[in-house]
Amino acid sequence: MPVDLKQFSNPEYKPGSKVRRAFWFLFNAFFLRNPYNPFGGIKRGVLRMFGAKIGKGVVIKPAVNIKYPWFLTIGDNSWIGENVWIDNLGKVDIGSNVCISQGALLLCGNHDYKKTSFDLIVGDIQLEDGVWIGAKAIVTGNVVCKSHAILTAGSITSKNLDAYSIYGGNPAEFVRERKLEDIVK
Amino acid sequence: MPVDLKQFSNPEYKPGSKVRRAFWFLFNAFFLRNPYNPFGGIKRGVLRMFGAKIGKGVVIKPAVNIKYPWFLTIGDNSWIGENVWIDNLGKVDIGSNVCISQGALLLCGNHDYKKTSFDLIVGDIQLEDGVWIGAKAIVTGNVVCKSHAILTAGSITSKNLDAYSIYGGNPAEFVRERKLEDIVK
Amino acid sequence: MPVDLKQFSNPEYKPGSKVRRAFWFLFNAFFLRNPYNPFGGIKRGVLRMFGAKIGKGVVIKPAVNIKYPWFLTIGDNSWIGENVWIDNLGKVDIGSNVCISQGALLLCGNHDYKKTSFDLIVGDIQLEDGVWIGAKAIVTGNVVCKSHAILTAGSITSKNLDAYSIYGGNPAEFVRERKLEDIVK
Repeated sequence: MPVDLKQFSNPEYKPGSKVRRAFWFLFNAFFLRNPYNPFGGIKRGVLRMFGAKIGKGVVIKPAVNIKYPWFLTIGDNSWIGENVWIDNLGKVDIGSNVCISQGALLLCGNHDYKKTSFDLIVGDIQLEDGVWIGAKAIVTGNVVCKSHAILTAGSITSKNLDAYSIYGGNPAEFVRERKLEDIVK
Repeated sequence: MPVDLKQFSNPEYKPGSKVRRAFWFLFNAFFLRNPYNPFGGIKRGVLRMFGAKIGKGVVIKPAVNIKYPWFLTIGDNSWIGENVWIDNLGKVDIGSNVCISQGALLLCGNHDYKKTSFDLIVGDIQLEDGVWIGAKAIVTGNVVCKSHAILTAGSITSKNLDAYSIYGGNPAEFVRERKLEDIVK
Repeated sequence: MPVDLKQFSNPEYKPGSKVRRAFWFLFNAFFLRNPYNPFGGIKRGVLRMFGAKIGKGVVIKPAVNIKYPWFLTIGDNSWIGENVWIDNLGKVDIGSNVCISQGALLLCGNHDYKKTSFDLIVGDIQLEDGVWIGAKAIVTGNVVCKSHAILTAGSITSKNLDAYSIYGGNPAEFVRERKLEDIVK
C-alpha cells in the first residue's frame, strides 16, 4: 500500500496542551469565528489571554478563524479582514500596517507527499510592515512577504515576495513594482 | 514610515447611518448568513425592508452574506447561490436571469496602494442579464459583466467581460464564445 | 429573451425525497457545518444514518458541508479537512487514505450554458486511493483523480488527473510526478 494515513503521526510537533487547545477551540468559535461579534476589543483581549502578541490599533473583523493564538504576533495598526483564516500551525508574524483582506488564508501546514506516512510539515509565515494580502488570497508556509509587498485578490504564493512588489496569479508571479507616490522610500 | 494605516480615513464615503448598518449587521447574520435558514421569502422580505430592489422569482440560498442591501438591485428570476458574498460597499446591479454560483464573491472595495494612507476605493459592479458567475469566482469593483457573459468556477476578473463570452483563469482571459443553441440572439 | 431561468426545471434529477433532504439540511447544519462540533464519531454516525458509506478511521474536521450523504462513499483512513464542501449533487466516491485539505470544494453541479433553460448537469467525482486535494482547491463534476494524484492548494480542475502526478493552477496543469520515496509502487 502506497500512502497509508494510519501511519501518520507527528509526535515531535507540540502545538500546546490538549486542554489549552480545547479551550481555545471554544473561544475561537464563540468570539472570533462568530459572525455576530463585531467587537474588536473583545477579540484582541481574548487573543492576548491565549498568548497572542497584538499591537495597538489592530482591527479584527467578524468571522475570523485563528488556529493557535500563542503562535501569533501582530504589530500596530494592522487589519484582519472578515472571514480571514490564520491557520497557524506554525508561527505567523504579522508586522505593522499590514492589511489582510477578507477571506484570505495563511496556511502553515503542509504534508510530505513523498512519504507513505504523509508527514506533517509546518512552516512559519512572515508578513512584513505594509504588506497587503488581497481578498481570498493564499500564502503557504515558509513564506516571507517582504516590506510592502502585495498579493492580489485570489492569488496564491508559496514563494517569498519581494519588497514593494505586486504579485498575482496561481502560482503568483511578479506583476509590477509598488511605488508609493507620497513618500520617499 | 511608508504605509501608515492610522492615516486611513474615508470621510467622503457614506454608506448609511451607523444605526442602519448596525441593524443590518444583525439581520444579515440572523436571516442571510445563517446556514439554518432555507426560506427565500423571508430573505427577500428582509432585504427589501432594508432598501434592496429585488424582482420576481429571485432565489437566495443559505449562508449568503450581503454588505449593504440599500446598494443592491436584482432583476427577475436571478439566483444567489449558497455562501455567495456580495461585499457591496458600492452599488451592485444584478440583472435578470443571472446565476451567481455557490461561494462567489462580488468585491467592490479596493485600496489605493500608492498612498501611504491606503485610501479606500469603491467601485460598482454590474452583472447584465443572463450572466453566470461560477462557483468561488471573484468579480472586483468597476467591472461590468455584459449580457450572458460567463466567468468560470474559481476565476477572477477585474476587467469587463464581453457579452456572450466565456472567461476563465486568474486573471480571467477569454476562453470561447457562448452560443445559445436554441435561440436567435 | 435569451437565458430564462423561469424555464429551469430538472424533473429527471431525483436526489431523494423532500422530507429526507429537509431533515438532512438540519442535521448537516447542526452536526457538520457547526464550527463548535469537533467530534468526528458523531459526524460519522450521522452521515451513516443518512446513507453514507464510511470506512474505518475517517477523520472529519469542523465546519464541513455535505449536500447529500446518500451519494457519498469514503474508504478507510481518509481525512475531510475543516470547511471542506462536498457539494455532491452527484455521487462522490472517495477512496482510502485520501486527504481533502481545508476549504476544498467538490462541485458536482454544472449548467448547460448553451440552453436558454440553463439545464442542470450533474457529474460524479471519484478520488482514488491516496489522492490529495489541496486547501481551497476545486474539483468539478465528471472528474476522476486517479491513484495518488495531487491537486495543489487553490488549484482548479475540470479534467481527470493522472495517477502519481501533481497538478496546479487554474485550470490545473501537470507540474511534476509524485514519487513516493519509501515504497516500490
